Amino acid sequence: MGGDHAPDIVVKGASIANQKLPNVRFKLFGEQSKIESLCAQYALTSDCYDIIHSDIVIEGDTKPSIALRQGKRSSMGMAIASVDAGEADCVVSAGNTGALMALTMFGLKRLETVSRPAILAMLPSRNSMTCVLDLGANIEADALNLAQFGVMGECFARAVLGIEKPKIGILNVGEEDVKGFDTLRQASTILRDSPLNLNFHGFVEGNHIFDGDVDVVVTDGFTGNVALKSIEGTSKLITGILRDSLQSSWLARLGTLLSYCALKKFKNTIDPRLYNGAVFLGLNGVSVKSHGGTDAIGFANAIEVATDLVKFDFIHHTQASLLKLKSTD
Amino acid sequence: MGGDHAPDIVVKGASIANQKLPNVRFKLFGEQSKIESLCAQYALTSDCYDIIHSDIVIEGDTKPSIALRQGKRSSMGMAIASVDAGEADCVVSAGNTGALMALTMFGLKRLETVSRPAILAMLPSRNSMTCVLDLGANIEADALNLAQFGVMGECFARAVLGIEKPKIGILNVGEEDVKGFDTLRQASTILRDSPLNLNFHGFVEGNHIFDGDVDVVVTDGFTGNVALKSIEGTSKLITGILRDSLQSSWLARLGTLLSYCALKKFKNTIDPRLYNGAVFLGLNGVSVKSHGGTDAIGFANAIEVATDLVKFDFIHHTQASLLKLKSTD
Repeated sequence: MGGDHAPDIVVKGASIANQKLPNVRFKLFGEQSKIESLCAQYALTSDCYDIIHSDIVIEGDTKPSIALRQGKRSSMGMAIASVDAGEADCVVSAGNTGALMALTMFGLKRLETVSRPAILAMLPSRNSMTCVLDLGANIEADALNLAQFGVMGECFARAVLGIEKPKIGILNVGEEDVKGFDTLRQASTILRDSPLNLNFHGFVEGNHIFDGDVDVVVTDGFTGNVALKSIEGTSKLITGILRDSLQSSWLARLGTLLSYCALKKFKNTIDPRLYNGAVFLGLNGVSVKSHGGTDAIGFANAIEVATDLVKFDFIHHTQASLLKLKSTD
Repeated sequence: MGGDHAPDIVVKGASIANQKLPNVRFKLFGEQSKIESLCAQYALTSDCYDIIHSDIVIEGDTKPSIALRQGKRSSMGMAIASVDAGEADCVVSAGNTGALMALTMFGLKRLETVSRPAILAMLPSRNSMTCVLDLGANIEADALNLAQFGVMGECFARAVLGIEKPKIGILNVGEEDVKGFDTLRQASTILRDSPLNLNFHGFVEGNHIFDGDVDVVVTDGFTGNVALKSIEGTSKLITGILRDSLQSSWLARLGTLLSYCALKKFKNTIDPRLYNGAVFLGLNGVSVKSHGGTDAIGFANAIEVATDLVKFDFIHHTQASLLKLKSTD
């Protein structure tokens, strides 16, 4: 178990998820004695978990290449191997992102229909959530890669957001067909003309991630990563300035006290824990990366994302859709 | 005069700017009778402006190609021609962005040392502002283009933010030297090894736009445009949710009333009018694009940005710096 507050938040997160998902059985990889006492502390009963001992943890600063060489006996490596062996349906980790990506790529392998796996995250929109991918698995993407990201994102939105016909958009610098790169226009043609009968919207701009016009936003990993981090930076800046302002005088503090419920509602709506769980798509297994700094509620949400994908039989659906897309090449 | 609230906010903006900049003389391009009555309304005395009549306005939805063909006698076209003829030092417009870009590019021409002009905007950071460029003048940029953006951005930060040695960063998906594209590494080498003795920081990620670690963030126009719009979308979403939450009950509204000054302080800090003014850099003249939806205060700030650049002799400084950079090719 890795992450800033592991193993505490991981076991507590499993316990919270257990309330909602009583049929899920957890395999907890990490230091047995620590996990045992946390399971007792958080009332996770022994019939819903197994502990698989490992005292090797991949640290947050371990490079992916080192993790690949040395990480097989780590808790992360063993958890991934367990999915590969069919003993677990999915893996959820709050540990080192680069290491998790390298180990899942190596351990679970790419689906044969997928040319490039991608990282997807859900971002808040005005009324629901928007799935954005790729967020950095690849820094470049050709037209077919982008079209495949669209199809994988569409399956994801059906599985996790429960949307019957998710609307797909491609991120660009304008909505008109003439804007941006040829690659984007080619990807657009593939998605529009696909026999999958997708709900393809066309091009969207950065601000449309948030207005709920589309459910899936497709981009290359470089642009997606920059956009995601810019969004995180903006959010942190604005909430930081708001916090400082509301503490700046006794009158403001009194007002804040009266607005407590409203501000809590505001906080809950933009709560990053709600959107916790970056997902590696395009692999022979479900792998969800929880934010390293999240708490138990955030980790429980990441578990829920993973179980949604398993229940939906996400990999099977993705394979089938990508095969159909491929037939149009 | 163009923009959502022109000519009203333009004349009022000039009047506000006039308080701070009593030596600036305005050339107001547009419908004479309307402007005359607005000047009287906003107490802009006749010794500080000339009106140049034009009743042709480039509409917000006019394509740049049409603007180029038909826009010469429009208020925008005439204002740009006035800069080109040396009758005005700079042009500020709240009109159609694409048209302004096309007309300034055509009218003012590219500086001979500049391979690609760029669009720069200032974004709020924790303690000051960060200049980001290119925001969409070009969708692609090679290493030399990026290095030139860095130099132009550095001159801008000295001129407008008054920073003696602005710190420059290149936007990437990680801070390590191995991250991202070769182009970014090459641009990094050009800036680091330049005889200009620049304060070059290296790579920065999207979230660093806001933490004040660097004063200038360099990127290609595609990534910059997506980042900017994602930032605008995030800001709009968060402030919208906050507004709704604070109006959701009578207790919240009472609290909001008590926190009025604090919330006003918050609003002032993130006020987009403060950062109003996207600037076209790399041309034989100063051209500032005010946000189309801004008000008079925002427009006055855009005027101030333009006059700062003129006072600093921005074009001369840019030329000199780019010549030095070129000598290292």
